[in-house]
Amino acid sequence: MKLLEDRILRDGVIVDGGILKVDMFLNHRLDIPLLDKLGEEFYRIFKGHPVDKILTIEASGIAIAALTARHFGVPAVFAKKAKPVTMRDDALHTSVYSFTKQKSYEVYVQRSFLTPGEHILIIDDFLAHGNAAEGLCDLAEAAGALVSGVGIAIEKHFQGGRERLQARGILVQSLAEIEKIENGQVIFLHQP
Amino acid sequence: MKLLEDRILRDGVIVDGGILKVDMFLNHRLDIPLLDKLGEEFYRIFKGHPVDKILTIEASGIAIAALTARHFGVPAVFAKKAKPVTMRDDALHTSVYSFTKQKSYEVYVQRSFLTPGEHILIIDDFLAHGNAAEGLCDLAEAAGALVSGVGIAIEKHFQGGRERLQARGILVQSLAEIEKIENGQVIFLHQP
Repeated sequence: MKLLEDRILRDGVIVDGGILKVDMFLNHRLDIPLLDKLGEEFYRIFKGHPVDKILTIEASGIAIAALTARHFGVPAVFAKKAKPVTMRDDALHTSVYSFTKQKSYEVYVQRSFLTPGEHILIIDDFLAHGNAAEGLCDLAEAAGALVSGVGIAIEKHFQGGRERLQARGILVQSLAEIEKIENGQVIFLHQP
Repeated sequence: MKLLEDRILRDGVIVDGGILKVDMFLNHRLDIPLLDKLGEEFYRIFKGHPVDKILTIEASGIAIAALTARHFGVPAVFAKKAKPVTMRDDALHTSVYSFTKQKSYEVYVQRSFLTPGEHILIIDDFLAHGNAAEGLCDLAEAAGALVSGVGIAIEKHFQGGRERLQARGILVQSLAEIEKIENGQVIFLHQP
């Protein structure tokens, strides 16, 4: 999606030799009109598939998931990184390894908020190694729900997440696919 | 706002003698069409005030802030509960005491994402003692920004948050104001 690629080139910042920061518009300061257009694009891509609910993970997935769900007219659920004191004991949970933070953390979803047989579209801001997306697939499948696909704003193609998801038979669609980050430059896949 | 009050009466759950859980539609499973209507209502209430940006706090404020920002056509920023490894050293931060969790936590905003002189509308899902909202006011003021108001989905009127904010001269508007929770029942202020 050219709009997003252009924005990454304009406002993305490469730090520590290879980490792309997009907190100027995607995951800290939120450019809401842009995120609404990304949601519209996810709708265009996935509208031929059954989608009863959007599933994401706190915190940086929530805004884009909410604005995508708006276009589908469906509810969204976000997995939580801590079990709230008020969450009932029958929470679904799974472990996700974060390469950025170099540690595993548990994510939780109230079991009743994912329904057996319903069709789930997973939305997240980034796909790298795929751990978070796989964790969300695990939660959906543990509930007996069906994953219609994974929609990602920015995919770091060189970190293998897509292959892991596709090996599970899951459709992956990204709005911006980064082939590599080299000499402080972002190179997109199939760049013109 | 009758739509929200009715939904609280229908789907809210009182646990532990007095905690209102609305994770069925507001802060875990997100009823996005409802949240978009709440955002529209915040726009109706605050459109006469200058609003350059929406400020909220992760995680449960993000969806409603994003859908409110959409109606204003402005960006949103959410304060983070942990300092990301990639956040620059000049982060604004303040301490917020959580009565639910019985402990204080730090919240962070990248300084450059709040601009001196700009007008901030603070949006959150709940107002109880007012600590989170006051923390967001502190961050805005530390940046030299001006708080146009605080918009709250559900206010627990009996916990004093409104008085603390109004003592600072801040306009508070809530979509559902709970006078008390008694015998497992939610009683709204000015209930017909």
